[in-house]
Amino acid sequence: MATRWGICSTGKISHDFTVALKTLPAEDHQAVAVAARKLEDAQEFSRKHNISKAYGSYEELARDPDVDVVYIGNIHPHHLKACLLFMNAKKNVLCEKPLAMNTKEVKEILDSAKRNQVFLMEAVWTRFFPVSEEVRKLLAQREIGEVKMIRSEFGIPLLHRPRLVEKELGGGALLSLGMYCLQFVCMVYNGERPESIQATGVCLDTGVDETVIVTLKFSEKRMAVFTYSSSMKLPNDAIIVGTKGTIQIPSWMWCPTSLIVNGKETQYPLPEPCLPLNFHNGTGMRYEAEEVRQCLLKGLKESPVMSHSDSLLLIELEDEIRRQVGVVYSQDCL
Amino acid sequence: MATRWGICSTGKISHDFTVALKTLPAEDHQAVAVAARKLEDAQEFSRKHNISKAYGSYEELARDPDVDVVYIGNIHPHHLKACLLFMNAKKNVLCEKPLAMNTKEVKEILDSAKRNQVFLMEAVWTRFFPVSEEVRKLLAQREIGEVKMIRSEFGIPLLHRPRLVEKELGGGALLSLGMYCLQFVCMVYNGERPESIQATGVCLDTGVDETVIVTLKFSEKRMAVFTYSSSMKLPNDAIIVGTKGTIQIPSWMWCPTSLIVNGKETQYPLPEPCLPLNFHNGTGMRYEAEEVRQCLLKGLKESPVMSHSDSLLLIELEDEIRRQVGVVYSQDCL
Repeated sequence: MATRWGICSTGKISHDFTVALKTLPAEDHQAVAVAARKLEDAQEFSRKHNISKAYGSYEELARDPDVDVVYIGNIHPHHLKACLLFMNAKKNVLCEKPLAMNTKEVKEILDSAKRNQVFLMEAVWTRFFPVSEEVRKLLAQREIGEVKMIRSEFGIPLLHRPRLVEKELGGGALLSLGMYCLQFVCMVYNGERPESIQATGVCLDTGVDETVIVTLKFSEKRMAVFTYSSSMKLPNDAIIVGTKGTIQIPSWMWCPTSLIVNGKETQYPLPEPCLPLNFHNGTGMRYEAEEVRQCLLKGLKESPVMSHSDSLLLIELEDEIRRQVGVVYSQDCL
Repeated sequence: MATRWGICSTGKISHDFTVALKTLPAEDHQAVAVAARKLEDAQEFSRKHNISKAYGSYEELARDPDVDVVYIGNIHPHHLKACLLFMNAKKNVLCEKPLAMNTKEVKEILDSAKRNQVFLMEAVWTRFFPVSEEVRKLLAQREIGEVKMIRSEFGIPLLHRPRLVEKELGGGALLSLGMYCLQFVCMVYNGERPESIQATGVCLDTGVDETVIVTLKFSEKRMAVFTYSSSMKLPNDAIIVGTKGTIQIPSWMWCPTSLIVNGKETQYPLPEPCLPLNFHNGTGMRYEAEEVRQCLLKGLKESPVMSHSDSLLLIELEDEIRRQVGVVYSQDCL
């Protein structure tokens, strides 16, 4: 039986996610309903994507008994409210990253998931790409020995996008870009909490972070460094240096389709989208969707690959990075 | 008339430097004398390199009236004493990097150079490679707009070399490896003092630094990050990100023979050595030797490309990095 998806919000990322769903077998994945704050937006989206039901409020989607899991694609200042709405209605949830604005909000979401006994996952799509799966396999097999250093980057000029600039929209490069580098470090070091984290960066006049370099130290003399920027194009690759070799993920590290292990490159191509996409390699969201399906089939309430504690570690480190570079959201002051 | 070089110390780097001199026209550069602490070592070196005079003490070399400039190639804990010896004997000096162990020692050396009115330069050979010259030209022409980010790396497994490990030999990766990354950052930002510098790293049991990540913030939201390690092989490239493009220096960034400007690569090959070398691209030391000659011909007491203030800035930042990672030399306690 197909997993029946409800799509919450009709923005760019929801478009790409819905296109990505269509690269999967229709007998496995079906977008059955879409909700926007304006009914016309939902109706337009439903026509474009051939989704049978369109709602002019998130509440109606929450009440739809035909929906197994809701994909939340609105901006992150609204994630807390949307997550609580759907989970209190006993809906499973795949929520776009970052899961919320700060640790306090994430804890509230995780608590609600447990209380309502629903499945919840932060949509860190990168982790489910075949490249990422292969990286985890290689690390588990100690193909490059002990990992000693990780470096990654995410920098694109995006200062024309209000979403990256305005504080009330959840602006700041960390939560939209830097988090990809951070989640990569956390994945490679298997969810271990770093011994120390240091962030040096510069902010925009709007009070959000623009370009930041973060260094982390882990036990056993293992380290990591990443750079993210909403103002400049960086090489945007990632590298893992081990005692016996090196794994490189060429640009773009957040939606990877190629892997270089000790100099040998392998391609992992994505399926073509049926409609134009808004984001690089957007059909790669198919893998996180399939992860959700597999977890639901197994009756899991969280994914072992992107677990609740993974989300908690991420946001705690993100809070610390923000503290060091001096970014305070209104949500921090409540 | 040829510049007449005296070679102080007969170690690996002196060998390479002398080989590099031979790639230059003999009417411009002549190694005329060599000194070691043991006469046999000097004699063997003089035979190997066809140098007419061999001395069993540095003092004899300092007294040799036929020597215009002394190349100091011993280990850095001995640079202070050697520099003072030769400069007090009114010899010009090209001294291997790092110029000395800490700021106090470097200041003593710079003061002595001024007092004795001799030429003195820290042998930061990288700065004189054609690649580096081209980088400075491109930056001056604002070929990539305003520089916003620099990244560089120097990591090689060298823990089998006592010189990198033992504190009394000047061990620690910063002064032997990291300084190349730091000087690169300082060159690109034109000797400007950073607003902040943060170092995170791990040390060896001997109390010297093994692997360190350093982030720097400069005025106008310009940043830099570099990683150095004596325990692992890193990609070892460098990149300069500007508002209008990117300059990449492929591995090895400390002795570069290739340059990639906005994706277009140009090769800058080195001459072949007449004898096997100890270090990668060792004949590249020819460019610093020629810089010394040109400065001497112009009557300069320091090189505008690697000036006394450049050396002072380097060592002050190196002291700060050491302070943050907790490396203390006996020379710091005098």
